[in-house]
Amino acid sequence: MSIIQPRTLKGFRDYLPVPMAARERVLEVARSVYRSFGFVPIETPVLEYSEILFGKGGEESDRQMYRFEDNGGRDVAMRFDLTVPLARFAAQHVGTLGTPFKRYQVGPVWRGENTQRGRYREFVQFDFDTIGTESLVADVETLVVVHDLFVALDISDFKIHFNNRDLLNGLLERLGLLERGASVLRALDKLPKIGADAVRAELHESSAATSEQADAILALAELRGTNDEVLAALPAIVGESPHAVTGLAAIKTVLEGVRAAGVADSRVRLDVSIARGLTYYTGTVFETFLEDLPSIGSVCSGGRYDDLASLYTKQRLPGIGGSLGVDRLMAAIDELGLIDDRGATADVFIPYFAKDRINDYLSLAERLRKAGLSVELYPEPRKLGAQMKYADRRGHRLAIVVGDREWEAGTAQIKDLASATAQEVAFANLVERCAALLEDGV
Amino acid sequence: MSIIQPRTLKGFRDYLPVPMAARERVLEVARSVYRSFGFVPIETPVLEYSEILFGKGGEESDRQMYRFEDNGGRDVAMRFDLTVPLARFAAQHVGTLGTPFKRYQVGPVWRGENTQRGRYREFVQFDFDTIGTESLVADVETLVVVHDLFVALDISDFKIHFNNRDLLNGLLERLGLLERGASVLRALDKLPKIGADAVRAELHESSAATSEQADAILALAELRGTNDEVLAALPAIVGESPHAVTGLAAIKTVLEGVRAAGVADSRVRLDVSIARGLTYYTGTVFETFLEDLPSIGSVCSGGRYDDLASLYTKQRLPGIGGSLGVDRLMAAIDELGLIDDRGATADVFIPYFAKDRINDYLSLAERLRKAGLSVELYPEPRKLGAQMKYADRRGHRLAIVVGDREWEAGTAQIKDLASATAQEVAFANLVERCAALLEDGV
Repeated sequence: MSIIQPRTLKGFRDYLPVPMAARERVLEVARSVYRSFGFVPIETPVLEYSEILFGKGGEESDRQMYRFEDNGGRDVAMRFDLTVPLARFAAQHVGTLGTPFKRYQVGPVWRGENTQRGRYREFVQFDFDTIGTESLVADVETLVVVHDLFVALDISDFKIHFNNRDLLNGLLERLGLLERGASVLRALDKLPKIGADAVRAELHESSAATSEQADAILALAELRGTNDEVLAALPAIVGESPHAVTGLAAIKTVLEGVRAAGVADSRVRLDVSIARGLTYYTGTVFETFLEDLPSIGSVCSGGRYDDLASLYTKQRLPGIGGSLGVDRLMAAIDELGLIDDRGATADVFIPYFAKDRINDYLSLAERLRKAGLSVELYPEPRKLGAQMKYADRRGHRLAIVVGDREWEAGTAQIKDLASATAQEVAFANLVERCAALLEDGV
Repeated sequence: MSIIQPRTLKGFRDYLPVPMAARERVLEVARSVYRSFGFVPIETPVLEYSEILFGKGGEESDRQMYRFEDNGGRDVAMRFDLTVPLARFAAQHVGTLGTPFKRYQVGPVWRGENTQRGRYREFVQFDFDTIGTESLVADVETLVVVHDLFVALDISDFKIHFNNRDLLNGLLERLGLLERGASVLRALDKLPKIGADAVRAELHESSAATSEQADAILALAELRGTNDEVLAALPAIVGESPHAVTGLAAIKTVLEGVRAAGVADSRVRLDVSIARGLTYYTGTVFETFLEDLPSIGSVCSGGRYDDLASLYTKQRLPGIGGSLGVDRLMAAIDELGLIDDRGATADVFIPYFAKDRINDYLSLAERLRKAGLSVELYPEPRKLGAQMKYADRRGHRLAIVVGDREWEAGTAQIKDLASATAQEVAFANLVERCAALLEDGV
């Protein structure tokens, strides 16, 4: 039989145990934070009818979609995010679920991106959304969730940048450019990359903005300062058009709300340069950056979208939510050196070398597990040295060494594998002693 | 804009919050049990080159595969199980990981099955496997893992049925039918469905077995009794051919091992009728049944496969593992009435009805969360009655009701929503009082 080369597809990859264990921890923390706010889990299929997904994320999403005909002749596609399936889900099940409906969902999504930019074609998102309310309480809560999430993850250098679409819309309203909002947004989204002059040129070209109009738009996008400074400067820039009034009131309410929830101003920043490329956002938008790794981009983004479900239902279903970019965050955690090399390994290793005692080893391992320890028993009666080398490589914390002599005497050697120290303990005290050593952080 | 009908594909479905929360709990328990034995997590892509998957699971798998050409012209397919990708993964990474390698992996798999049989085309498996050892210690441990998993899940009526391929092979060796093993297995796998006479006919037809040979095969498959009775009866049936000797020694070792690990004979049964359709199994095979729901079939199955990775590497990589059929188990848990209707909901509900106090509500909710409680704050200042109806429907346990009067007085009403009783508590004692009530299982 000829050998098939074992390989993954271009733009796809395996997760090995150490990074995967770290990812599991991140998902567990996120799940626990989302649940603590009353978000509940749902799952939607990976495959949807193409008509559900196509045209919902813009031209680029359509081009990158994994779309094909299934064996039954259906036009199907793999989801490219979790938000469009949520809109379909909400439209379909809102009668059963009622509103407000707060859900979280985690899973891979697929985009046939150009892999030369170091991007993957399969990546995991962990979203949370509140559907069915326009109340700004949901906007506040969304930012507090993100804050509590990064605190719970022990990531100390994050900052949430938020903005409100109505500020720019208010300015455009005053300038008479409101109808060109989409192309103005596209231009502004490039500001960090191409700089003010290039954006000014693009605004002129794509949105027919005069120099004065472009200057006003850039004055808004380049406004910097503390939250209170920005709040104070904004009215003069955006004016008093209906959108401007709504936007100013909203950011004030949101800022007061997150402060009331105990979020420090050093963690959340009113940043009017945040645009977000997606046109479906209608109010609050936000991105989250790690200050030690600005180049990695936003690791958690989202905003309010008050019309998305209208593709699938006539019922009004406003929503707001955020999406944790799990793979991007994992890359950051890796780069920051926060991955625990031993995170994937059982705490306790038991070498098996008194050959005829296998049933005793099995019994011992199970006794320790019942006491709450994680225990790996080596499956073959190899030489002790080879087994201890295996444990060193795997990174167990403790080894419980029991040879013929110890089985006779009813004792075990507990080895601390990091310090290479050992102590002899009677079987009766083994569980307690191991638990104490692990507690001490061996 | 015309409305797109919100619907899922035939054979696919959404998971709503209550069953999804129950599924999350099952996955969490399984993860924790697998980890307690030293299994470590990995992830492989959903999409693989078709050549990796095609022809590996048999004709039916090939026909049911979601296979298509991607935008780059590659012949790709969605995985139909987690075992074939593991074989590819092990062949690719064994140099980095070393052996023995014990991994778990959870995720959806896809098969374009006939949905008329009540089957779904997307379902979740949660596998664990030990790669790189032929030691029967791994076989013992595999059964102990399954045992500990169902105990941890609080499912009291399970029974693991195990067998060893070498018993049948030993008999066939004696009968001179060893080369027809695959077709004999296919026939035997149908025994529970079609009965002894039909199997006898099929053995005659497909495997050219004489009446005496078919009788001997059926005498083995129909052997019943306690583990010790079956052990005692087997030698006379399977004879003393090399396979028979190996098989008899193996089941004896496995049975002694699981007993040593504290598994009662009522939980694990030597059942020589267990065949498992897949031809790649080479030794131990097992299935797990719920005695209250035999019709649902096996909820956790697996076995030893000593040659699977040889498709992708010349290195010998024997393996053994099991696969928890998560969706089938969830259907069983649902049917047994074991799903907690309130499992998806935050413990504490805070209605928001003193309109100008929103920042106080936000602060209160966050204070409770910091104490470890899960708290849902209603986002709109609606009438209290409507909000309490919402909480009733969602199934929160406690409501913390604070109106203008209470905000002034620094107190809150804690309502036990099941018993509809209430008590007034000072803010200072709120966290403690809620925690105590939840502990008492309101």
